Amino acid sequence: MSGKKLGAGVVRTDRLLMDGRTIRYYDTQGQERNAVDQREPETQPKIGEMRLDPLNNEWVVMAAHRQTRIFLPPKELNPLAPSRPGFLTEIPESDYEVVVFDNRSPSLRDTDTPAKIPSELSLETPPIPAAGKCEVVCFTSNYEASFKDLSHHQIRTVMEAWRDRVAELSQLTYIEHIAPFENRGEEVGVTLSHPHGQIYAYPYLPPRTEKMLAAARNHMERTGRVILDDVIAREIKDETRIVTRNEDWIAYVPYAARYPFEIHVAPIRPVPDLAALDERACENFAPIAKEVLQRLDGVFDTKMAYIAAWHQAPVRVGRDVLRLHWQITSVRRAPGKLKYRDWE
Amino acid sequence: MSGKKLGAGVVRTDRLLMDGRTIRYYDTQGQERNAVDQREPETQPKIGEMRLDPLNNEWVVMAAHRQTRIFLPPKELNPLAPSRPGFLTEIPESDYEVVVFDNRSPSLRDTDTPAKIPSELSLETPPIPAAGKCEVVCFTSNYEASFKDLSHHQIRTVMEAWRDRVAELSQLTYIEHIAPFENRGEEVGVTLSHPHGQIYAYPYLPPRTEKMLAAARNHMERTGRVILDDVIAREIKDETRIVTRNEDWIAYVPYAARYPFEIHVAPIRPVPDLAALDERACENFAPIAKEVLQRLDGVFDTKMAYIAAWHQAPVRVGRDVLRLHWQITSVRRAPGKLKYRDWE
Repeated sequence: MSGKKLGAGVVRTDRLLMDGRTIRYYDTQGQERNAVDQREPETQPKIGEMRLDPLNNEWVVMAAHRQTRIFLPPKELNPLAPSRPGFLTEIPESDYEVVVFDNRSPSLRDTDTPAKIPSELSLETPPIPAAGKCEVVCFTSNYEASFKDLSHHQIRTVMEAWRDRVAELSQLTYIEHIAPFENRGEEVGVTLSHPHGQIYAYPYLPPRTEKMLAAARNHMERTGRVILDDVIAREIKDETRIVTRNEDWIAYVPYAARYPFEIHVAPIRPVPDLAALDERACENFAPIAKEVLQRLDGVFDTKMAYIAAWHQAPVRVGRDVLRLHWQITSVRRAPGKLKYRDWE
Repeated sequence: MSGKKLGAGVVRTDRLLMDGRTIRYYDTQGQERNAVDQREPETQPKIGEMRLDPLNNEWVVMAAHRQTRIFLPPKELNPLAPSRPGFLTEIPESDYEVVVFDNRSPSLRDTDTPAKIPSELSLETPPIPAAGKCEVVCFTSNYEASFKDLSHHQIRTVMEAWRDRVAELSQLTYIEHIAPFENRGEEVGVTLSHPHGQIYAYPYLPPRTEKMLAAARNHMERTGRVILDDVIAREIKDETRIVTRNEDWIAYVPYAARYPFEIHVAPIRPVPDLAALDERACENFAPIAKEVLQRLDGVFDTKMAYIAAWHQAPVRVGRDVLRLHWQITSVRRAPGKLKYRDWE
């Protein structure tokens, strides 16, 4: 066995794809993973560049090569299916539980020579290679399933995969922030229907994280407390916005929800990131996750388009003030009606 | 004549709608505007509330009553058409050039008793009435037209309407920022196809404006210069990203474009807001605007969904560092493919 043992009996086995990218199989049944990627070898795209948008002081990743990505292919051309004779996909094996592989058209990619990002940004800040990681997480080999249809056992395996990726990506010197997320539905830009999520590992703090960090630091200075702890205390006190809870997780519609449908799910014992969750919290995540996503689909009795994003503390800063939670937001405001970004 | 004389021979005449809202006709042909709104009188919705999202330190306007807005009605039920016998719309007259009226379901609305917004925000910050203004700008009575199809004369009339609104809304003590914008296309959340824009007047600085203000102040401290002036100087020097220009306006794809299609249009003589444009710049805006929007539609030979937003200096702060410009962004990345918000 060449696999690496993780929690909950999950074993990770790494293999290389035809262009040198890594695919990681997360298994619980002692599977051997020896299938070779038989597609024609390809060269990976070169690393892209990030430019500073000086009007907003935000990094913008230029990603021209992503324009040709495959877009909503029919089921028989699904690149996230297991491979079968005559149809070779991103996953060489003929079946899988959970896999995580490097995105074929990543906007951020790994590098041996990461550039230092200047701390002082200005109009003269030169472009920088877009170092980072973009990974694809396949939740199941079943094309028809959705996250809410997964068994507790499957969700626990996904959880171990997320935790493993967060722990490993945190070791890369050029990674500052890690965001595992799932977009479901064409309405939120999904280009593949197969149940999957993504992990973005950034070489800088994304604007939203930077803003949350500033608010959290401000709260800590003013009160000596962690803001998410106080937010959750208020939700428990107000009670009316709680969707469901168990001994390890609480799910609520936040007091100042930003989207027509928005639910936050937080561990009751606060931790900075997924890797820091304890055994029981990992085990108790599945029932909460399933209930929340089932209720979301129940609102209009339809497959609700959503973004489910883990917000973690950054890798190197703010780990004393920011706390792990999962934000599920939906742009649907009624059947067939969507809410989009404003003029900003 | 009860009208108010504006620039370029435009006369504004105000009338009341059945629920007390104001409609303003901007005319150039000496029209009398005496038509009475014959719809059943209605009560205006009460003012909503804004809540502070403490995780991001951002105001969120709660707008439950907007869920029932009319959504993409067929042409014969278009509420932005002129009224005709048997079909009464938001515009009582049987024809119009340009009108601006108060939104029937505003997320922000006017008030006689504006609340003071605390400068120190915290978890304990109470909700505040959502004071402000949401106005609808109809560019033409012609349902089929798009902004790019308007004549120079029509665009000049729209410009006078925008300038008039900015000048007047700036007088309201509770308004901090004014954003005139147009969303075109279902893909960006448009609920009515009739060519129209909106004006949001906020009682606080929207997050994007706050961020631009911080970057602009930083640049001023560091260099003594206005950042947009330096950005435009770089675009002129680099030359390759300039789309078109005339003696008063320059249009360019910004160095660090954030969207698949993005064009910024700025006056060459910098001004803080629309009201501050001089006569010649007002006159010379139409040819640039038409060319930019025609080119955008030309990319895929289709009606491109876009957001065209005026970014102005805030009403009360930052008028020395922020400058007027027009940002046109499109989420389309290829025919039938859209780019949506990320996990953030």
